[in-house]
Amino acid sequence: MLQSKLFTKTRREDPKDEVAKNAKLLIRGGFINKEMAGVYSFLPLGLRVLNKINGIIREEMNSIGGQEVFLSALQNPEPWKKTGRWNEDVLDVWFKTIMKDGSEVGLGTTHEEPLTNLMLNHISSYKDLPLAVFQFQTKFRNEERAKSGLMRTREFLMKDLYSFHTSQEDLDSFYERAQVAYENIYRRTGLGDLTFATFASGGTFSKYSHEYQTVCESGEDTIYVSKENKIAVNLEVYNDEVLAELNLKKEDLKEKKAVEVGNIFKLGTKYSAAIGLEYTDEAGEKKPVIMGCYGIGPSRVMGTIVETLADDKGIVWPKEVAPFDAHLVVIGGEGSEAMTAAVKLAETLEAAGLEVLIDDRDKGAGEKFSDADLLGIPTRIVISPKTLEEGKIEVKDRATGEVKKLSESELLSLFQKV
Amino acid sequence: MLQSKLFTKTRREDPKDEVAKNAKLLIRGGFINKEMAGVYSFLPLGLRVLNKINGIIREEMNSIGGQEVFLSALQNPEPWKKTGRWNEDVLDVWFKTIMKDGSEVGLGTTHEEPLTNLMLNHISSYKDLPLAVFQFQTKFRNEERAKSGLMRTREFLMKDLYSFHTSQEDLDSFYERAQVAYENIYRRTGLGDLTFATFASGGTFSKYSHEYQTVCESGEDTIYVSKENKIAVNLEVYNDEVLAELNLKKEDLKEKKAVEVGNIFKLGTKYSAAIGLEYTDEAGEKKPVIMGCYGIGPSRVMGTIVETLADDKGIVWPKEVAPFDAHLVVIGGEGSEAMTAAVKLAETLEAAGLEVLIDDRDKGAGEKFSDADLLGIPTRIVISPKTLEEGKIEVKDRATGEVKKLSESELLSLFQKV
Repeated sequence: MLQSKLFTKTRREDPKDEVAKNAKLLIRGGFINKEMAGVYSFLPLGLRVLNKINGIIREEMNSIGGQEVFLSALQNPEPWKKTGRWNEDVLDVWFKTIMKDGSEVGLGTTHEEPLTNLMLNHISSYKDLPLAVFQFQTKFRNEERAKSGLMRTREFLMKDLYSFHTSQEDLDSFYERAQVAYENIYRRTGLGDLTFATFASGGTFSKYSHEYQTVCESGEDTIYVSKENKIAVNLEVYNDEVLAELNLKKEDLKEKKAVEVGNIFKLGTKYSAAIGLEYTDEAGEKKPVIMGCYGIGPSRVMGTIVETLADDKGIVWPKEVAPFDAHLVVIGGEGSEAMTAAVKLAETLEAAGLEVLIDDRDKGAGEKFSDADLLGIPTRIVISPKTLEEGKIEVKDRATGEVKKLSESELLSLFQKV
Repeated sequence: MLQSKLFTKTRREDPKDEVAKNAKLLIRGGFINKEMAGVYSFLPLGLRVLNKINGIIREEMNSIGGQEVFLSALQNPEPWKKTGRWNEDVLDVWFKTIMKDGSEVGLGTTHEEPLTNLMLNHISSYKDLPLAVFQFQTKFRNEERAKSGLMRTREFLMKDLYSFHTSQEDLDSFYERAQVAYENIYRRTGLGDLTFATFASGGTFSKYSHEYQTVCESGEDTIYVSKENKIAVNLEVYNDEVLAELNLKKEDLKEKKAVEVGNIFKLGTKYSAAIGLEYTDEAGEKKPVIMGCYGIGPSRVMGTIVETLADDKGIVWPKEVAPFDAHLVVIGGEGSEAMTAAVKLAETLEAAGLEVLIDDRDKGAGEKFSDADLLGIPTRIVISPKTLEEGKIEVKDRATGEVKKLSESELLSLFQKV
């Protein structure tokens, strides 16, 4: 794709109304647009990143047998009244609105109630179980204070998976598979080294839940990390009893600020009992279905990647989530030898399955290089009169800053190694 | 995919609270779930169809140079106040809600205002134009009466493209390319023969707009169709003056009921002037940007396909939008020779790039055949002790009812021809 045709423009100055690093860089790079406090739109580069994150999550959810659905955002109050969560003293982030006939509807903050309710039509026997159902859907949360760019917003994309089981053992075994899928997601999105499965409060349903917390200075949460065990404990359950149970010693744990990038829960029968979702077991007896839920916010993952991996020059996208594989910077105007060579090289790279952004804009080399650093595409390639004279292609790794001079075939094998 | 693992179940009886054919069949087939009047969720089979429709639309929008974005659903009142459409006397389908600080926000019914406003950051010169930007996003409309299943809902998916130009000529030329893209969409989704580019009121912005109207007995609109010219005229502009201008004669037109499945508009400077979206021309003069907008509702297209193409046995999906390419019905239980042969055949078909639903359920042949008719997958394949004995595969075309007995290689070439 030609950068001159991309409608988004980069900016030199930070937006004045943003404090968070992720919001500043993503707005400067033209990835997102702020509609109002806590509400962002995704522009072409940002949507590319978001779709890549969604793609990774979708693959991992399919790999554990998830079936994809798309529930409505407008929510019928009835199932919520059954669990008590229609009440704003219980769930305080509702956006509600009024239909023409005067009745109230809610905007989905989460989907336990409607999905459990929907399953009344589809689960009746033990033969229908186990089941895992997921979606990518916008969630709306009436936050008192939206802040930290994509980290805490009033409207955001969420992947939520719900699992349905006949027994605690079956839930436990699925939960373990979901943990593996979640670890794969963080590794593939580039957050693996910084992200810890964190013991947190299980609420009213179970002893613990697991949060996935990414260590990040600007994070809102405090966690205690055991690097050797690749786990952590959230401040809210950080006490002697819990540590003893988890076989952890205070002296081995390090206090860190962190961002919650996922949360998985054993719900038990909390929702199924309230809504009446039962199955008939092999002896013909009716029992409430046992449930789990598994959430991850792709847009928050995107914000966290920027927040933790960016450097002072701009964004550094991990390879699997980058908007393009290569950023081909041309030093030379329309019709120049460099431009012709660049377009030809881009065709070769695209034929090899790579996505290439060609900076063909009528700008100076310095501005192009600093924009390339800002946009954070993993591999920057320069084609200039000088590189043409040398008969080599200049290749820079955005993350390490390492520069190499390569032949075309060396460049292609560099991408194959990746 | 094994049908026994699909969590959705087919139903024999029509849902009691639905009148429209599309809603009855889609609910009976387990494609959608009714959350409340005018609000539906998409279950795995339904989401597959919706994603295929979206994929066709996306390809066509990319082919005319559209750049994809994803705007927020929560909308800032400010740009809407500038055009006057925040006022509910002007736009009467708003769902509005209240933030914690007491301020109002809207739920997107359409996105002219926020997108025009966003472009203030990205369009300043004639060099930035023309541009075409599109998205797939949920729209919310507070309809007095939701009805007709997926045809008129309170929440629905919409693809909306907006184009930005320096001149009327440039808008006109893009508009023509968009018309070709729209015709491609209706042809590929199977509605081509029934759908007519229909002259309709241009509102305050231009003389006419074009609606795409699909002839359908249960449609809400009345149109006058000229089959030879492949165009129609909406009742709202059906008068002598308009007919003369379009060179149409009353006696050549047939009155039909129809469903509007798309609408394209020349907006001119209505929104850009109100919001202040200007560009500097080559002479350095500031001028308002000239705009067009191009909408299509993928979920309404899905409903219209069912409404117009279904027969008395169930749904008939056109090939490009079907949830699967082939429905492989196995007569024989687990471990039977038929099941083994079916799984092997499915692997062969999948290796050839086809999507196959295997009906491996523990049900009688009659129930499986009537479910296959209900689900409407284009090609039904039967593997039974009888077909194995014959050494042939039974293949039925859902649309025509034609049955053939084929060898495996004949079956594969049947799909290649398609």
